[in-house]
Amino acid sequence: MDRGGAITMSRALLARPAEMAARIVRRIEELAAITERDGEVTRVVFSPEHRRAADLILTWMREAGMAARMDEIGNVVGRYEGEAPSAPALLVGSHYDTVRNAGKWDGPLGVITAIEAVAALSAAGVRLPHAVEVVGFSDEEGVRFSSTLLGSRALAGTFDEGALEAKDADGITLREAMIAFGLDPDRIRRAARRREDVLAYLELHIEQGPVLEKEDLPVGVVTAISGANRFRVELDGMAGHAGTVPMGLRQDALAGASECVLAVEALAQAGIGVVGTVGQIAATPGAANVIPGRAVISIDLRAADDGQRRETVSDVVDAIDEIAARRGLKARIIKTHENGTALCAPWLRAQIGAALTAAGHRVLELPSGAGHDGMAMIDLADMAMIFVRCRGGVSHHPAEHVTIEDVAAGAEVLLGTITGFQPR
Amino acid sequence: MDRGGAITMSRALLARPAEMAARIVRRIEELAAITERDGEVTRVVFSPEHRRAADLILTWMREAGMAARMDEIGNVVGRYEGEAPSAPALLVGSHYDTVRNAGKWDGPLGVITAIEAVAALSAAGVRLPHAVEVVGFSDEEGVRFSSTLLGSRALAGTFDEGALEAKDADGITLREAMIAFGLDPDRIRRAARRREDVLAYLELHIEQGPVLEKEDLPVGVVTAISGANRFRVELDGMAGHAGTVPMGLRQDALAGASECVLAVEALAQAGIGVVGTVGQIAATPGAANVIPGRAVISIDLRAADDGQRRETVSDVVDAIDEIAARRGLKARIIKTHENGTALCAPWLRAQIGAALTAAGHRVLELPSGAGHDGMAMIDLADMAMIFVRCRGGVSHHPAEHVTIEDVAAGAEVLLGTITGFQPR
Repeated sequence: MDRGGAITMSRALLARPAEMAARIVRRIEELAAITERDGEVTRVVFSPEHRRAADLILTWMREAGMAARMDEIGNVVGRYEGEAPSAPALLVGSHYDTVRNAGKWDGPLGVITAIEAVAALSAAGVRLPHAVEVVGFSDEEGVRFSSTLLGSRALAGTFDEGALEAKDADGITLREAMIAFGLDPDRIRRAARRREDVLAYLELHIEQGPVLEKEDLPVGVVTAISGANRFRVELDGMAGHAGTVPMGLRQDALAGASECVLAVEALAQAGIGVVGTVGQIAATPGAANVIPGRAVISIDLRAADDGQRRETVSDVVDAIDEIAARRGLKARIIKTHENGTALCAPWLRAQIGAALTAAGHRVLELPSGAGHDGMAMIDLADMAMIFVRCRGGVSHHPAEHVTIEDVAAGAEVLLGTITGFQPR
Repeated sequence: MDRGGAITMSRALLARPAEMAARIVRRIEELAAITERDGEVTRVVFSPEHRRAADLILTWMREAGMAARMDEIGNVVGRYEGEAPSAPALLVGSHYDTVRNAGKWDGPLGVITAIEAVAALSAAGVRLPHAVEVVGFSDEEGVRFSSTLLGSRALAGTFDEGALEAKDADGITLREAMIAFGLDPDRIRRAARRREDVLAYLELHIEQGPVLEKEDLPVGVVTAISGANRFRVELDGMAGHAGTVPMGLRQDALAGASECVLAVEALAQAGIGVVGTVGQIAATPGAANVIPGRAVISIDLRAADDGQRRETVSDVVDAIDEIAARRGLKARIIKTHENGTALCAPWLRAQIGAALTAAGHRVLELPSGAGHDGMAMIDLADMAMIFVRCRGGVSHHPAEHVTIEDVAAGAEVLLGTITGFQPR
């Protein structure tokens, strides 16, 4: 089947998108009810809620015509065979763990929509030339053990065994938690998939930002999961009496830090696809009548392009050095984190774009400033992401929301991409 | 005696300024040893240390030829009669309470130097046309009851009876503490002096700032005790994910606050004799990967001229409003404190200047950004202040220091001013 034919077919399958969306939303609510604490959504890896959620998703997968199982790291995997058995698979998924007091959509929307897409294929009796596997990753947020992407790293074959000794807040190690959950930590590497069995990884996720809302679009194509740097900047000047030290004799660390905050903002703005944030600031001694002798800020810089990010980082460091030198402050810049950009494969983006166009939407490409399982999956296969608009860009918060119309639009684009999928 | 004659006399009296300075420094150490906690200098009002310090100072006063007593608010007052008994007096003094973990010089230097000046007169058998009274105020810092200038307000007749109900950290009221100390709260108003008995108030104090050091001068003349305003500024924007919200869609409260910090600095710099300080800052939620939705800063603005201060305050408020409007932030500006300028009387400044010139120093006039007892004494009489250089401008800290040479210079200028004093 050529792509045009496949897209035509996906529309036929989705004769009742509103009904599909209604089912997706119902399942979002069902999954949200599985939580550590009533009144909020909290579901961390290897907890009783993890087990209950996994069982529910596995049931949905089987109802959608998939062979479903939990893998060695607690991921749930459902396989819908292609025209020939044991064909390489297009992997489609997201995660089903949450942050504490989370929204209902971050993760589950991608898993549930993928299951619905397969259910549509299955209901229509359609087999594609390739298999489709739906994956629900067990631990993307990393809330319990402070180590993100456990599920996708295991599946991609890059699981770090050292993580097994990480402890949760109660002092329980990941190893102990897995055993208590009924999994064998020594078998994690069996969760790893072979490259030849995987054609690509595709993920639908809420945007967690305001761009689609601003652009009045329900769905967008992700260009890349941005690389990121984090820094801690310490500025040391001279504390003094707020009343007695003339302006010209001051070495005010907070005034210097304020210039740094504005430099981060201006340089991020000047870069292409860069965001820069100072989220933390402290001035000491911290009395209203004392000139701050020390100020400390955090800096978070992200860009879809690694070269651009490195350029902005370098500009920010230069700016801080210049500010400190001009003000007689001592600056210390400590890098606390760095990860490179995970590029969404252009050939996959083009196929998502075709599905978007077929569904009648303008194609908007945007970077993902937040991290996703694709950062791990890229080590296994080319990957791409579809973003769905979320209200006000709000995420990691109970107010996180997606309209049922946007759920339908996302489902249509995901199904269109799956049915129109052409391996590279 | 004309002024020239008096100054000549003061030099003769101070034939051995180094010896006088050595005695002052010795007494500074003796007084510093009277402390609530070993290893630091802490002496608060109506404490056992207050009693011991008062007794020591009263002894020194008597040794210097003065009739000495503790008044109804715990001030120590020594009187050296003039040529005629019961003549109106020039009051000279400072305070002998301290902040917690204080330096040794802030307050005591002025009291001890004044006693030494009178001792020099007394030793030489000199009587002036006016009486000289040395006052050691009991509570300038206001550490124990959070109400400053208790001693000088009582003497100036402006003591607020409501302050008697103020409680210390142990829940003891000022009233109870006075009674336990052996004073009668109902007799405080007897500490008030009559205007006709007081010719002027003169105080020598360490600068607590870096101006004299910068100007390479041991002593300076204070123009005024600066008026001050304090504000709390709350800025509300929109929190968001540091990775997902593009720069153009942000309402970053901390970026706005940073502009406010720099506006305070720039507008203070632009004003004449103005200092402006942001000593406190907080950004919430305060995570490295979250755009701050809220930021709060303190603002402290002081100026020797009330009109200039009001102008700068108005400019700062306008700047904050402009910054908030441009950035889509909500700004709330809360005034938390205001006090007007206490001007040092020009006729007294001229007499201090003459003593400085006679002692061979260049006359530098500078404002006091810190508060002093003169703020209360100005309600009773014209007042003026002499500043003595302190190392690095450091005060309210154990590292507070004055060289013995500067102690000698200060003593010479104070004695010169006292002996050359001409009532208005």
